[in-house]
Amino acid sequence: MRRYALLPLFALLAAAAPPVAKSPGEIVAAAPASAWRAVDPDNLLLMDLGNDGHVAIELTPAFAPAHVANIRALVRGHWFDGNAIVRVQDNYVVQWGGADEKKPLPVGVAAHLPAEYERPRTGLAIRALGSRDVYAPEVGHADGWPVASDGKSAWLPHCYGMVGVGRDMPPDTGTGAELYTVIGQAPRHLDRNITVVGRIVDGIEAMTALPRGTGDLGFYSDPTQRLAITRARIASDVPEAERPRYQVMRSDAPAFAAYVDARANRRDAFFVRPAGAVDICNAPVPTRRAP
Amino acid sequence: MRRYALLPLFALLAAAAPPVAKSPGEIVAAAPASAWRAVDPDNLLLMDLGNDGHVAIELTPAFAPAHVANIRALVRGHWFDGNAIVRVQDNYVVQWGGADEKKPLPVGVAAHLPAEYERPRTGLAIRALGSRDVYAPEVGHADGWPVASDGKSAWLPHCYGMVGVGRDMPPDTGTGAELYTVIGQAPRHLDRNITVVGRIVDGIEAMTALPRGTGDLGFYSDPTQRLAITRARIASDVPEAERPRYQVMRSDAPAFAAYVDARANRRDAFFVRPAGAVDICNAPVPTRRAP
Repeated sequence: MRRYALLPLFALLAAAAPPVAKSPGEIVAAAPASAWRAVDPDNLLLMDLGNDGHVAIELTPAFAPAHVANIRALVRGHWFDGNAIVRVQDNYVVQWGGADEKKPLPVGVAAHLPAEYERPRTGLAIRALGSRDVYAPEVGHADGWPVASDGKSAWLPHCYGMVGVGRDMPPDTGTGAELYTVIGQAPRHLDRNITVVGRIVDGIEAMTALPRGTGDLGFYSDPTQRLAITRARIASDVPEAERPRYQVMRSDAPAFAAYVDARANRRDAFFVRPAGAVDICNAPVPTRRAP
Repeated sequence: MRRYALLPLFALLAAAAPPVAKSPGEIVAAAPASAWRAVDPDNLLLMDLGNDGHVAIELTPAFAPAHVANIRALVRGHWFDGNAIVRVQDNYVVQWGGADEKKPLPVGVAAHLPAEYERPRTGLAIRALGSRDVYAPEVGHADGWPVASDGKSAWLPHCYGMVGVGRDMPPDTGTGAELYTVIGQAPRHLDRNITVVGRIVDGIEAMTALPRGTGDLGFYSDPTQRLAITRARIASDVPEAERPRYQVMRSDAPAFAAYVDARANRRDAFFVRPAGAVDICNAPVPTRRAP
């Protein structure tokens, strides 16, 4: 928990101790190209913020096809351009898109969608996490996503950086016009109560470091406190030459298995007692800019 | 996940639906005075920050007596006055006190302390959480603290807002001169690898909303980015008339049992499927200013 300016000491210890195992970060850095899959530009939502932040979100039609299609239509209908982040609740969520509740939805955007809280487990190649879970009988990863399951259905758990669809009380009132991301301890009690559509793959710091709202539920009580979304685009609409490209670690890559094991059993020099287990939300799937 | 400006709709639904259960927040607000214990001013560390933030930390001699005593001596020796927050790593920790590694420790402060990673379970009246845990065989609450145990030892889990003691590689190098708090998903792999001394009871937003450091491990690479700690005091040294007073919900209060049950089984109107379980770090012990 201190700075690694103490590497000389570390080196001294290492000389007398057994070989020090790789840290999770070192495993990720050493992973071969075959350990990564590209993020499909049709599923990549790019948002530019008024604080010069650039947020990249991978959407997953495999879990929320109707909502992802609606979000694409919202983006292409310029719903988010000039919209804002309206809520920052500490240890909970950042929420955006609801700057003007009277603004009509763009043409082609559905005003009501069926809830997509879960999907059939069938069709997902889930790599078991290898640790138990507080909330679900089964947790693991599939195609670069964290997944929870009860054996029949599967759903995306509310881990840090996951993106969900705000809704009002009735379950069919989420459209994607108002989105949120998790910025604290995983609020897993929201699992299967709300549609999760993706996760932030880059730039979350531009959202998590924002001043907390002082209104109820962390809403900014004064609209001038809101942070503007200056532009939102689907990456496939961005000219190829200027399109950012991201990669996600494959769930079936040997490097991913080594990474999860290292998250559960820290053997790098700082640790005196490996935990022997890891929470699904404490083994975030590695993502990176494409090299 | 949307604003409660939709209460008219909520009211309409409630008229036709079964009675709506209280939310965790409503249970806490309705708890009687007997449900709360005072924070001992000898265990209350108050820090004023350069951003006008005021952070209040409850220290626990029951888990880390030597480190708490050392922290009191550091505070009284003005170690933290004019010191700074030096590290903000997203989804991990904020760390302070290490602005000048060459500064000598105040007189009376121990430079080496035994690790206080755990204590005997005996002597703690642990109220079982009622949910399983990923990391420990047993979790619950004792005297207003979250507790994990293996049946023999007990320790404070690294939940959001818990405060720990930075150290270098050898376990006896933490003094309390450098402290950190958790600002993201609970890094429970640190449990029993580092001494935990307390938790923030007020003002965490002044730390969590800070810009993330861009240096290795989230350290501020430029010292001018650091946020000053203008003053640190132990509350018992503050004149009574200006001393802030805090309370923590008692682990054995019926209101606390109702609160934990409501965190595990959200029955307020928004929820369609209660989780049936709760993570120890997703049922934070309620704290408040003394009324």
